[in-house]
Amino acid sequence: MTEAGGLVLGIDPGTAATGYGLVRMDDRLRVTLVECGVIRTSAGQPLATRIREIYDAVFGLIERHRPRVVAVEEVFHGKNAQSALKLGHARGAILLAAAHHDLMIAEYAPRQIKKAVVGTGNATKEQVGFMVKQQLRLKEVPTPADAADGVAAALCHCLMGGRPA
Amino acid sequence: MTEAGGLVLGIDPGTAATGYGLVRMDDRLRVTLVECGVIRTSAGQPLATRIREIYDAVFGLIERHRPRVVAVEEVFHGKNAQSALKLGHARGAILLAAAHHDLMIAEYAPRQIKKAVVGTGNATKEQVGFMVKQQLRLKEVPTPADAADGVAAALCHCLMGGRPA
Repeated sequence: MTEAGGLVLGIDPGTAATGYGLVRMDDRLRVTLVECGVIRTSAGQPLATRIREIYDAVFGLIERHRPRVVAVEEVFHGKNAQSALKLGHARGAILLAAAHHDLMIAEYAPRQIKKAVVGTGNATKEQVGFMVKQQLRLKEVPTPADAADGVAAALCHCLMGGRPA
Repeated sequence: MTEAGGLVLGIDPGTAATGYGLVRMDDRLRVTLVECGVIRTSAGQPLATRIREIYDAVFGLIERHRPRVVAVEEVFHGKNAQSALKLGHARGAILLAAAHHDLMIAEYAPRQIKKAVVGTGNATKEQVGFMVKQQLRLKEVPTPADAADGVAAALCHCLMGGRPA
């Protein structure tokens, strides 16, 4: 197994801020955090420009790290159609960047991520942050919260048996 | 003014079927239909694959025809969040293909398109089809309806004074 074989890019999509986290799982199923952060788009710019910023940033992350899998948070229920439409644009850009690299895409509902990382689908944001910190042996919870959510998506994929190919 | 200066690519986005129409407006504001059609995606394939098909097809259309502007139908109101999210993915792929060519993007609400093409925002699909046929001096209304809607978006941009740069 190559080193890159175990690398998972987790993403929490958003039009204004898209959180991401790269988690590596080794042969012994030990997980480590490689990088995490937030892709912020230019407020006030047209939607097409913001989507392009997201696509280009995710495309660049994939080129740089060569993950095997992209784990994307599966949104969302109950919010209004207008914000769902906007979020869909951002999410489309992310899936496209992964598809253009012929990467496997795994989608997880927020509840699945909480269940995998904390043990309960009703976990709070704080609980998710705490368990991300524990499981990855970090000194602090990744900030901002969007970055932690991206890491949680990657961690979920690892914990749910998304084993390196 | 170069010939391509007056070319407008109109798009009616959809996950399953995305209609498009290329309309040229010459110096004397005469409009002609260059091409129209429908991009159909593979039903049963993952959303990422379908979005990629849409992006690649729109990207290819732009490369082939080099329009100056992409006129995209601005969707939508009142439908449920889940279908809005899905449609957003498709629309994101379209905006991204245009942005990657540094094209101007014009967005028109369905009502604006009907108003520009037929004269009333409450026009029926049949009325839109009829006026598209009349204005572009076609023998028949473009089919399927998605293609006619793509043509109508391009025509709307021309009629609303979206003049070649």
